[in-house]
Amino acid sequence: MTKKWVYVFAEGSRDMKNLLGGKGSGLAEMTKAGLPVPPGFTATTEACLAYFDAGKDFPEGMWKQALDAMKVVEEQTGKKFGDPDNPLLVSVRSGARVSMPGMMDTILNLGLNRETLHGLAEATGNERFAYDSYRRLIQLFGRIVKEMEGEGFEAILNKYKERTEGKRDTDLTVEMLKGVAKEFKELYLKEVGEEFPEDPYEQLRQAVASVFDSWFGKRAVDYRNFERIPHDWGTAVNVQTMVFGNMGDDSGTGVAFTRRPDTGEAELYGEYLTNAQGEDVVAGIRTPVGIAELQEIMPEIYDQFVQVAEMLENNYRDMQDMEFTVERGKLWMLQTRTGKRTAQSAITIAVDMVAEGAISKEEALMRVSPEQVAQLLHPFFDPDDQEKAREDGRYLAKGLNASPGAGTGMAALDADTAEEWAKEGKDVILVRPETSPDDVHGMLPARGILTQRGGATSHAAVVARSLGKPCVAGCEAIRVDTMSKTITVDNRVIQEGDIISVDGTTGEVFSGTISTVEPNFLEQKDLLTLLSWADEVRRLGVWANADYPRDAILARQHGADGIGLCRTEHMFFEDERRPIVVRMIMASAEARPVERKRDALKAEIEKAVKDGDADLAEELRAKREKIKDSPGRVAYFEALNSLLPFQQEDFEGIFEAMDGLTVIIRLIDPPMHEFLPPLEELLEEVTELRCTGSNPEELAEKETMLQTVQNMWEVNPMLGLRGCRAGLMYPGLTEMQVRAIFEAACRKTKEGIDVRPEVMIPLVGHVEELRRELEKLERVAKEVIAEHGVDLNYKFGTMIELPRAALTANEIAEYAQFFSFGTNDLTQMTYGISRDDAEGKFLLQFVEDKILPFNPFQQLDRDGVGKLMEMAVTLGRGVRPGLEIGICGEHGGDPSSIEFCHMIGLNYVSCSPYRVPVARLAAAQSALQYPSK
Amino acid sequence: MTKKWVYVFAEGSRDMKNLLGGKGSGLAEMTKAGLPVPPGFTATTEACLAYFDAGKDFPEGMWKQALDAMKVVEEQTGKKFGDPDNPLLVSVRSGARVSMPGMMDTILNLGLNRETLHGLAEATGNERFAYDSYRRLIQLFGRIVKEMEGEGFEAILNKYKERTEGKRDTDLTVEMLKGVAKEFKELYLKEVGEEFPEDPYEQLRQAVASVFDSWFGKRAVDYRNFERIPHDWGTAVNVQTMVFGNMGDDSGTGVAFTRRPDTGEAELYGEYLTNAQGEDVVAGIRTPVGIAELQEIMPEIYDQFVQVAEMLENNYRDMQDMEFTVERGKLWMLQTRTGKRTAQSAITIAVDMVAEGAISKEEALMRVSPEQVAQLLHPFFDPDDQEKAREDGRYLAKGLNASPGAGTGMAALDADTAEEWAKEGKDVILVRPETSPDDVHGMLPARGILTQRGGATSHAAVVARSLGKPCVAGCEAIRVDTMSKTITVDNRVIQEGDIISVDGTTGEVFSGTISTVEPNFLEQKDLLTLLSWADEVRRLGVWANADYPRDAILARQHGADGIGLCRTEHMFFEDERRPIVVRMIMASAEARPVERKRDALKAEIEKAVKDGDADLAEELRAKREKIKDSPGRVAYFEALNSLLPFQQEDFEGIFEAMDGLTVIIRLIDPPMHEFLPPLEELLEEVTELRCTGSNPEELAEKETMLQTVQNMWEVNPMLGLRGCRAGLMYPGLTEMQVRAIFEAACRKTKEGIDVRPEVMIPLVGHVEELRRELEKLERVAKEVIAEHGVDLNYKFGTMIELPRAALTANEIAEYAQFFSFGTNDLTQMTYGISRDDAEGKFLLQFVEDKILPFNPFQQLDRDGVGKLMEMAVTLGRGVRPGLEIGICGEHGGDPSSIEFCHMIGLNYVSCSPYRVPVARLAAAQSALQYPSK
Repeated sequence: MTKKWVYVFAEGSRDMKNLLGGKGSGLAEMTKAGLPVPPGFTATTEACLAYFDAGKDFPEGMWKQALDAMKVVEEQTGKKFGDPDNPLLVSVRSGARVSMPGMMDTILNLGLNRETLHGLAEATGNERFAYDSYRRLIQLFGRIVKEMEGEGFEAILNKYKERTEGKRDTDLTVEMLKGVAKEFKELYLKEVGEEFPEDPYEQLRQAVASVFDSWFGKRAVDYRNFERIPHDWGTAVNVQTMVFGNMGDDSGTGVAFTRRPDTGEAELYGEYLTNAQGEDVVAGIRTPVGIAELQEIMPEIYDQFVQVAEMLENNYRDMQDMEFTVERGKLWMLQTRTGKRTAQSAITIAVDMVAEGAISKEEALMRVSPEQVAQLLHPFFDPDDQEKAREDGRYLAKGLNASPGAGTGMAALDADTAEEWAKEGKDVILVRPETSPDDVHGMLPARGILTQRGGATSHAAVVARSLGKPCVAGCEAIRVDTMSKTITVDNRVIQEGDIISVDGTTGEVFSGTISTVEPNFLEQKDLLTLLSWADEVRRLGVWANADYPRDAILARQHGADGIGLCRTEHMFFEDERRPIVVRMIMASAEARPVERKRDALKAEIEKAVKDGDADLAEELRAKREKIKDSPGRVAYFEALNSLLPFQQEDFEGIFEAMDGLTVIIRLIDPPMHEFLPPLEELLEEVTELRCTGSNPEELAEKETMLQTVQNMWEVNPMLGLRGCRAGLMYPGLTEMQVRAIFEAACRKTKEGIDVRPEVMIPLVGHVEELRRELEKLERVAKEVIAEHGVDLNYKFGTMIELPRAALTANEIAEYAQFFSFGTNDLTQMTYGISRDDAEGKFLLQFVEDKILPFNPFQQLDRDGVGKLMEMAVTLGRGVRPGLEIGICGEHGGDPSSIEFCHMIGLNYVSCSPYRVPVARLAAAQSALQYPSK
Repeated sequence: MTKKWVYVFAEGSRDMKNLLGGKGSGLAEMTKAGLPVPPGFTATTEACLAYFDAGKDFPEGMWKQALDAMKVVEEQTGKKFGDPDNPLLVSVRSGARVSMPGMMDTILNLGLNRETLHGLAEATGNERFAYDSYRRLIQLFGRIVKEMEGEGFEAILNKYKERTEGKRDTDLTVEMLKGVAKEFKELYLKEVGEEFPEDPYEQLRQAVASVFDSWFGKRAVDYRNFERIPHDWGTAVNVQTMVFGNMGDDSGTGVAFTRRPDTGEAELYGEYLTNAQGEDVVAGIRTPVGIAELQEIMPEIYDQFVQVAEMLENNYRDMQDMEFTVERGKLWMLQTRTGKRTAQSAITIAVDMVAEGAISKEEALMRVSPEQVAQLLHPFFDPDDQEKAREDGRYLAKGLNASPGAGTGMAALDADTAEEWAKEGKDVILVRPETSPDDVHGMLPARGILTQRGGATSHAAVVARSLGKPCVAGCEAIRVDTMSKTITVDNRVIQEGDIISVDGTTGEVFSGTISTVEPNFLEQKDLLTLLSWADEVRRLGVWANADYPRDAILARQHGADGIGLCRTEHMFFEDERRPIVVRMIMASAEARPVERKRDALKAEIEKAVKDGDADLAEELRAKREKIKDSPGRVAYFEALNSLLPFQQEDFEGIFEAMDGLTVIIRLIDPPMHEFLPPLEELLEEVTELRCTGSNPEELAEKETMLQTVQNMWEVNPMLGLRGCRAGLMYPGLTEMQVRAIFEAACRKTKEGIDVRPEVMIPLVGHVEELRRELEKLERVAKEVIAEHGVDLNYKFGTMIELPRAALTANEIAEYAQFFSFGTNDLTQMTYGISRDDAEGKFLLQFVEDKILPFNPFQQLDRDGVGKLMEMAVTLGRGVRPGLEIGICGEHGGDPSSIEFCHMIGLNYVSCSPYRVPVARLAAAQSALQYPSK
């Protein structure tokens, strides 16, 4: 028995996408549902592959099956393919599993020839239309099937157009079109070397073969290579009856949605145009009417269409976007597909449909994308207004979408100005070459932030996200000149004070105002309902990254289950603390060797005591006591200890806000020199002071500072003295931090608050680093708890953010009570890419050029970074079953990454408070898709 | 049957180290060989563990076995333990598998009591000696077994000493010592709460238990934690008859080697001291005589000793270092161990012993350490002269041992001065804060290089190693002031022109001259013989890293099998090329977008042609042609192309030098801004020029340069735009390099040279980066080969130097024809440590503090980096069986790392030409130890 190569539409269904292609299976589904679909059939993707296997020959039986299918179509339409009196015309379209814009175009009007065109002319009563259709067939067939250059056809058309007044296609008369068709065929003969096939079946045979051939056409192959689509999928071919909406006032064409795609309201929504084809609607020459008016124009058709729409929605169990044509009073459905919709609409439709009993809660959860949730959490530009701005040429540039949301205001080029104007009640956008901690007071009141330099982990980006402010960072197309107070884009100059608008969701920057819409999370009932369902099904915890009490409160409002990352370094940056930190760092160079000497002496004293050499022990003790008061050491510890109360106060606030939930506090992580003034700035100041000689005192002071900064200078600070390395190199630093944490925890416990601290050590690469730090943690924590006499549960754990930590996670799990993946750093190290440097300089371009499939700092790279994470989970839990493992990198808020975290069995993801609702939905979707994980 | 817990020496052997400990098994071996060893026995490590299992109780049968063993010893010595007339005295010593300095001390003279001391006095004819031995026993026993403070004993001794004239131990009379012994016992009673045990067996029992206890003493536990020695090994206890070399002129003590440890010459070598104990030799109060003189003093003893020495060497089949005592005309062997020796001696002894038929070639290969080979390849300080310099206080500081060898000369603080003085025939040491390519002309003629900043991959270190010059880098204890032309260490000031000496092997710096010894590789016959044997057994290839023809020639002389890494970037640094590179970089900012636009237009033209839109195609072509001549693009390509002849010339030289061997050429790797002047320098210059306003033209020029450097500025250049990323971002850069390589290869092929080029793409993280670069390589290589019409074999491969490359090595092996591990970068990324920054700032201190077990940049980290390498080998060869895999990082010359490379099945290691002989030996040793790999 020969294989089944051809399916008439009624034989297929939407489950047969791989065999019939996307388009073919959709048409089959509608047909099966009994909808009025122009009849047709599909040659399968398997036929395509067999065609190539046979050296470009239709597989045995295929053509016979196609002819049989055509007979069925003829019966269904009552027309006959090639019948001069009542001709059946068909279109031929490719249709692979996925849409491929690089593939061949459609060939329309197959079945037309010298004879059938008369039948068409008669049927339509429009000879001009028939000849125009005919010449289009020859042209399309020649170009697409025979790969003729298009220029010859254009030359002939132009020659005729020159003879008309309007010089347009539409000005050509019937006689002219007859001449065009004749000359087209002559050209065809000349270039192809054979006559244009007048036999409709020959037309069909060649067109179908040509669609198959196009699968390995250069454009298609390039496209597949680019999009990483397998070459062994093949394409199906769809042959479908032509219908015409331009056959008079009893004809027309329209598009409609089963529910409103903007708000989600449950009413039919669309438009209709009498006596027109689909392309006329697109061309916009005539204005269509609202779909409701069809009720008056053609009440029966309207009723039928309403029924169809309802049936389609019931069938697909989702809001549908439909195309239809009315040909001489008969409704034909040309396409239905799940309709695109706004975020608001998606959520409302999903929640409504659950209420209607149409879908389950689980299905509703799968209907809304996490990014749609994200859209409802931040202000966004009114889409029409934004479109208008684009049309008006107000689009300026695109930078990195560093923090979502949209804002409009006066451009302020320094933080002081921003603050001042904001106090006067003005909306401002802070625009800086890049930001530093000194700019925070200008960021706080700004409606948005725009920087010329810096990546998605730059200061501007990190602070903006934590504040929930829109931010476009690293917008390298603009030049911010803080001296002349101007922003230059290409040759356009924007003055400080001019209005600009920034969209942190897309990274776009505009001049002038664009009105924004401000959502309020707690008032969005449908969203809250959906998220409550998400919480019922998700297995992953959703925690938040929060450095301040205000963040913790926000996180809780958004539904966070805990704090997965509280960074302590930001606490060091605040105004009154920074000078203390600077003092500490300046003194450390002197204090460190003294402390080392004291440690060494301690060991020597112990040995002397052991050896019974009391004199030596006494001598060593005196020596040790003497260096205790060396000025550098005293200054160092004085500064270090005066940081303690500040830290403690911050922790108290956070513990209070997170009463009953876990708070993971990370010890200080960044290179300490980040707290000092930048080297470049100091160098400029010192050189200038030296040159002018005006202020010797200031010079001396700055020179000392410069020397400190130069001594601490690191070529690659990301790979330098930071994380636990700082704890191991700065005496007492870890102890001070732990004391602050446990002092705060004990006090709050005494006040009746349920405090659950977990302390996390960053940047561990070797287990011994962890072990030494843990020793200090344990000692100090026990001391403080004993001092307070309270009962307190706590854990000590580590970040897994270096490849080596993941590779040796079994050793590390011997000591760490929990793991938290720092996937920002882990991605940086695994790829050898510094995010700050790379995004503007090459990374985004690599993504654009498809060298990288996505930006690995936004979406977790499962093949590389993910492999390390899986290893770490397996190795860690092998040693410590049930080990608590989470993720606190930026990826914690990214849906694809959340899915991966779910799949490898993490306990929770932690993300910015504003991403918590997004993560709740993503976690629920992961649980639904991978229930066994 | 009870277990055997106790072994008399004759029952053990050297294979029983785990059971008897190191010391016990050595004594057993000598006894078994029939040598005169003072009799004794050993309680096993198993007994120790059983003792702890039983809650600190001797295991069943042990004490009985000890008493039996004591009987055997009594028979052998003819003395009796506790016999007042002829007392046997013993020592008790701990002895674990490995030597542990943190463990308990030795207890001597056990068996002495009020009664036996008279026997001893009579036997020695020295009552004072007997009482002194007795009071020492009480003191040692009290302190070690009973953990008494030593201070009480000291106070009593001091009291008696005060009464003498000399106030020394030796001034005490017999009567006084009797009083001391009495008071010691009173103190013992008072502090311990029981009488000092007069029963010798009680002494023994307590001493043995105390040695067992010491295994878990604090010092021992700390030591084991620190040294990572397992706690469940336990310690053995050795009980051995005391012998005395201080019993008159027929007694004495000596040490000797069976061959000369300095030159390896085959003659007995050592010294002897009459009427003395071992500690007298150490104290150096009397001067010993050469061992040969013993022949005159005691001819029989001498003859016996010569025989013993011969027997020991034959038995151990290696040069022995022996200790012996003569007690009243009888020779006693106290210890033999394999003797330490100089590098020269090690090689000569090994080669000699093969010639003598004593050992096999394979054994000879295992007898010489690779580091000993290294010592013979570089100039080194005359050890005596260096020791003298140290004694004279001329040691200054220690930095990083960045390139081995030693050198002496006048300190020159800039490259010009160094060059000038060298031309005048002076020896110079170039001393710089750090070096840059501008300093190379001063490095070339220098005898050594010293820098204040920079790690082992700093410019100074890398260039010095490639030149084979001694280099001490990152010597942060010194301050190099190039303005005042001084070097300051603590408070010492060294002027430019003063003589200094640097030892790149140890990292030490001295003031003044130290004479150096200059070895010549090709004249060292014994070494060459040994290495020829190494080549016979090794499986690993040993290749060299060589950037210039001179390096390639040297590599070949040292026995390299190929060039594993030829870095092309050094070619860009040379004087006449650098300005071209700078021009290219400056123009690239403008050229890059133009080239991208041209690429985009090309695609649009193709589409227009396809669509038959000839007008559009023409328009686009014109547009594309127009921007072709934009000034930036023209300047860029002009500069790029003028680099080609230089590169080609270099490659021709290398191919010629490596006729018949493979040469792996790596495309340009470092961040391009490394070729530009440093930012700090420019900033200072510009600020100064602005301030003075003196030279507006120079200011404008420098400002442009500053802007370029700032735009290219990267926070973490190691993780930035470098490696293949540069090839993907700089249009035509890859093509130019490939053309230069293949032009050179084709020309040399035509000249009859056997050229085997392999081209390597650096810093691949994602397979697509590799695929795109390979496309260019293939295209250009084929073009050039076709132009020349030659037959040429070549390969294209990649570095595996990012964790992600290792993790996805299966994907990468689909395209790469070979892998080369870049373990410098791989280690940096896996640890998240920048070598340049870390070594001085914390890494070396971490190693010193045992936070890290070793410096992972010197020795490959098998647990982390090694795991990635193993994955890459398995994944890569899974896809491409037989894939050629090597290593070209610094580790390629490190013996431990070479062993690992052998074990995971690499094809070759590649290292600096000077390390090639070292690697040849290390590879041979690996093959002998792991023959199946």
